[in-house]
Amino acid sequence: MIETLPNRFSGREYEVELADPEFTSVCPLTGAPDFGTITIRYVPGEKLLELRSLRDFLVSFRAREILQEEVVNEVLDEVVASASPVRAEVEGVFNVRGGMTTRVVAQT
Amino acid sequence: MIETLPNRFSGREYEVELADPEFTSVCPLTGAPDFGTITIRYVPGEKLLELRSLRDFLVSFRAREILQEEVVNEVLDEVVASASPVRAEVEGVFNVRGGMTTRVVAQT
Amino acid sequence: MIETLPNRFSGREYEVELADPEFTSVCPLTGAPDFGTITIRYVPGEKLLELRSLRDFLVSFRAREILQEEVVNEVLDEVVASASPVRAEVEGVFNVRGGMTTRVVAQT
Amino acid sequence: MIETLPNRFSGREYEVELADPEFTSVCPLTGAPDFGTITIRYVPGEKLLELRSLRDFLVSFRAREILQEEVVNEVLDEVVASASPVRAEVEGVFNVRGGMTTRVVAQT
Amino acid sequence: MIETLPNRFSGREYEVELADPEFTSVCPLTGAPDFGTITIRYVPGEKLLELRSLRDFLVSFRAREILQEEVVNEVLDEVVASASPVRAEVEGVFNVRGGMTTRVVAQT
Amino acid sequence: MIETLPNRFSGREYEVELADPEFTSVCPLTGAPDFGTITIRYVPGEKLLELRSLRDFLVSFRAREILQEEVVNEVLDEVVASASPVRAEVEGVFNVRGGMTTRVVAQT
Amino acid sequence: MIETLPNRFSGREYEVELADPEFTSVCPLTGAPDFGTITIRYVPGEKLLELRSLRDFLVSFRAREILQEEVVNEVLDEVVASASPVRAEVEGVFNVRGGMTTRVVAQT
Amino acid sequence: MIETLPNRFSGREYEVELADPEFTSVCPLTGAPDFGTITIRYVPGEKLLELRSLRDFLVSFRAREILQEEVVNEVLDEVVASASPVRAEVEGVFNVRGGMTTRVVAQT
Amino acid sequence: MIETLPNRFSGREYEVELADPEFTSVCPLTGAPDFGTITIRYVPGEKLLELRSLRDFLVSFRAREILQEEVVNEVLDEVVASASPVRAEVEGVFNVRGGMTTRVVAQT
Amino acid sequence: MIETLPNRFSGREYEVELADPEFTSVCPLTGAPDFGTITIRYVPGEKLLELRSLRDFLVSFRAREILQEEVVNEVLDEVVASASPVRAEVEGVFNVRGGMTTRVVAQT
Repeated sequence: MIETLPNRFSGREYEVELADPEFTSVCPLTGAPDFGTITIRYVPGEKLLELRSLRDFLVSFRAREILQEEVVNEVLDEVVASASPVRAEVEGVFNVRGGMTTRVVAQT
Repeated sequence: MIETLPNRFSGREYEVELADPEFTSVCPLTGAPDFGTITIRYVPGEKLLELRSLRDFLVSFRAREILQEEVVNEVLDEVVASASPVRAEVEGVFNVRGGMTTRVVAQT
Repeated sequence: MIETLPNRFSGREYEVELADPEFTSVCPLTGAPDFGTITIRYVPGEKLLELRSLRDFLVSFRAREILQEEVVNEVLDEVVASASPVRAEVEGVFNVRGGMTTRVVAQT
Repeated sequence: MIETLPNRFSGREYEVELADPEFTSVCPLTGAPDFGTITIRYVPGEKLLELRSLRDFLVSFRAREILQEEVVNEVLDEVVASASPVRAEVEGVFNVRGGMTTRVVAQT
Repeated sequence: MIETLPNRFSGREYEVELADPEFTSVCPLTGAPDFGTITIRYVPGEKLLELRSLRDFLVSFRAREILQEEVVNEVLDEVVASASPVRAEVEGVFNVRGGMTTRVVAQT
Repeated sequence: MIETLPNRFSGREYEVELADPEFTSVCPLTGAPDFGTITIRYVPGEKLLELRSLRDFLVSFRAREILQEEVVNEVLDEVVASASPVRAEVEGVFNVRGGMTTRVVAQT
Repeated sequence: MIETLPNRFSGREYEVELADPEFTSVCPLTGAPDFGTITIRYVPGEKLLELRSLRDFLVSFRAREILQEEVVNEVLDEVVASASPVRAEVEGVFNVRGGMTTRVVAQT
Repeated sequence: MIETLPNRFSGREYEVELADPEFTSVCPLTGAPDFGTITIRYVPGEKLLELRSLRDFLVSFRAREILQEEVVNEVLDEVVASASPVRAEVEGVFNVRGGMTTRVVAQT
Repeated sequence: MIETLPNRFSGREYEVELADPEFTSVCPLTGAPDFGTITIRYVPGEKLLELRSLRDFLVSFRAREILQEEVVNEVLDEVVASASPVRAEVEGVFNVRGGMTTRVVAQT
Repeated sequence: MIETLPNRFSGREYEVELADPEFTSVCPLTGAPDFGTITIRYVPGEKLLELRSLRDFLVSFRAREILQEEVVNEVLDEVVASASPVRAEVEGVFNVRGGMTTRVVAQT
């Protein structure tokens, strides 16, 4: 679980965007490393995602074999489970592999 | 046919964007090579497009004589036939030819 | 008239954008040359604009004295008369003259 | 009054954008010069703004002490009075002053 | 309270955007300085925010320990209390911390 | 001949660079227009190149059929004949033709 | 004269670069305003140029009719007279006038 | 052999730079297409490289299996054999392959 | 003193560049905060500058009233005293103040 | 050892530059991942570095705890041992850590 902080302004619906431009995981088909930027956008409820804990969660993919489409959906599930946001979106933009780039966006 | 992988998150409507900045075909009017970027955006159903197979399909245009407007429409038809996406869009942005650039966008 | 090619995919409503970054005409007020980029966006009906013929049409303004606002409207009229598109838009972005830039957009 | 030219295409509703990246006036609070870009967007009625006359009008602010918010509103009033456009918008983007930038947008 | 100036054009609904690219405060969790850009967008009522006074207000965060999400909400509260705008929005874009960037947007 | 102005600071060896980003001539092999940027760098002797006269000289290439390599050398010859500079350099950077760009630099 | 501050590190030969991106004067040939960036680079002797006084000196050109080549040489003369630098260079980069840009560099 | 044109200014040592941003060949190790930009810089002797013929020569690599390092050296050899330049340099900048980019420069 | 680490490769003369894009101090003339980027380039001797300790040293300027020219020279003195490099250079690039930017470079 | 290919043009002294924008290792002081771009420039002797083998060598740092200064020197040593180049240089540009960026360059 990603740790959270109390949201002092939970009475107002506002947006927070957190981006990790240093995401890396491993491609399950080729065994080669994947690199990209993961961006999380959410409207907080009672909780704010704690930055350092979120970072540790994202670093935990470093040795995992997982498809890029699955990375984005798993991060979204974890954000929802940890912080119960009003709404959330996760976007992954991945570097060129075999001459092609990939971008994936999922929302609650 | 472009090969596919099973979509583990088919219960969620999310978007995938795949871009090939190294597309090349041959102009049927002049015989000169055309160059451009082909971008595919789709909401997957039960299947995900497999990146390497998609790449091979796009490389297969390398020796074909075909209008730029037709490239974009043919790619869209193939994506739909192979992966039965919820919806799909294909965009082609082509380099200067005779002092002019071309951009074509087609959607299901 | 701008020449046309048959549209093999006329059953699908898709967009084509053609840009000429090397447009030049002559200002009727000062006699000095004007420079700019003319961009044509259209949804083709039964016909596609042929690139070389379109280019020749745009080069024909090289020696004409005409206001920038009129260039954009005349090009739109010619595109409509030649290709009978479902809809069309012409945009002209012109270089600094007397310290000011001009942009004109007209649609059917 | 800004001079005008007759609009040969007044039967079509289209947009014209004129930008002056060299606007300068004087701050009434500090006496220091202000710099910025003034952009005018309008749908012409029977008249087109004449570029040189518009430029002279904007240069006339060079020695005036006036707030940036007031510049944008005065230019909009003058454009409307001179050319009776179908609709108009004026935007001013001003350089850093005291470590802060300003942008003002007003519409009819 | 941020000082204000009378709005000579209060009869027209227009937008003002003020940006401070040199905002800095202190992170309450690590004690390290945070840096970012605070942008205020508002439709003025009877009052305009005075630039120098706004700047002083933002500089007053220089030694405060406060979460980035809280900075944006506090600035919005102060703008509303000082200038009673028709509507207002505050956006904070903060530099990389622990490999991640943050962006927060709150509106009335 | 390009007109000149007296150089008030001829006792100091300093550099002047004048650039025309709107140069156009005609290709003698294809009859199609060429476009590019001509940049003149020189250390003035007793004379400064007059900007408007230089501009008229460059506009005079608009209808001439001439190779890009020859444009640059002819402009250099004319600059030397008109202003007798201490030294001079002319650079031409030309737009894509047949998928290729050209840059030519000549010095006294 | 531009005011100066004592140079605490006059025993070390180091470089200072001061740039004013908001320089404006008046063209003596056309009466139209000129705009540009003036950059001063110098190795200080016993004195440092005081920023506010330098700024006031540069603003004093706002109403003067003077050639761009002369601006750069006059600023260099004033810098030398005021601060007796070990060496100095002044560069002026001016906006498009009649479709051409100008850059002037003078050194001691 | 690349065709040539006579150099009207062979008495002056000047530089010509020709760039092809659409170079493509085939990797001999993987069979996958390579893409890059080939830039030729030379000081002409009695002959100028003819642009269209040079382009045809570069397009002839489209189906060849050849290392990127060898492409650059072969182009240099052909330029020297065809135009006998005073001196010449060829640079190839190639797109990412397996997560890495390549740049090769060879000179006479 | 800035802490150091042993240089495992002291037998080879190589260069290290460390940049802090978040430097801030206080102007002694106006009391307003200054912002800029400090870049340190050095050839290490037996010691490498430890990044966290260097950062703490630079953060210590946050509340100091000091001229920008003096910041650069003081940082250079401290780098030399702490790490005894073979040679070192410090560059400060500071944000606009009163419409002007400053850059200072000092070397051993 | 990095594998090599024979250099068909070893008789000519030319330069090859290979860049890996996806380098990652682990900081020995904090245990956090480091990210950066490693660029290798060399003049080949009898051997060319094989791209895939070089890539595997660089990926082997993914789990190693090593200072950034040491990465660059170790890569240089390995390039020299594997390919015996005429000369070689390695540059590492690393992402922000604790608000600071690092760049290291070492040469034979």
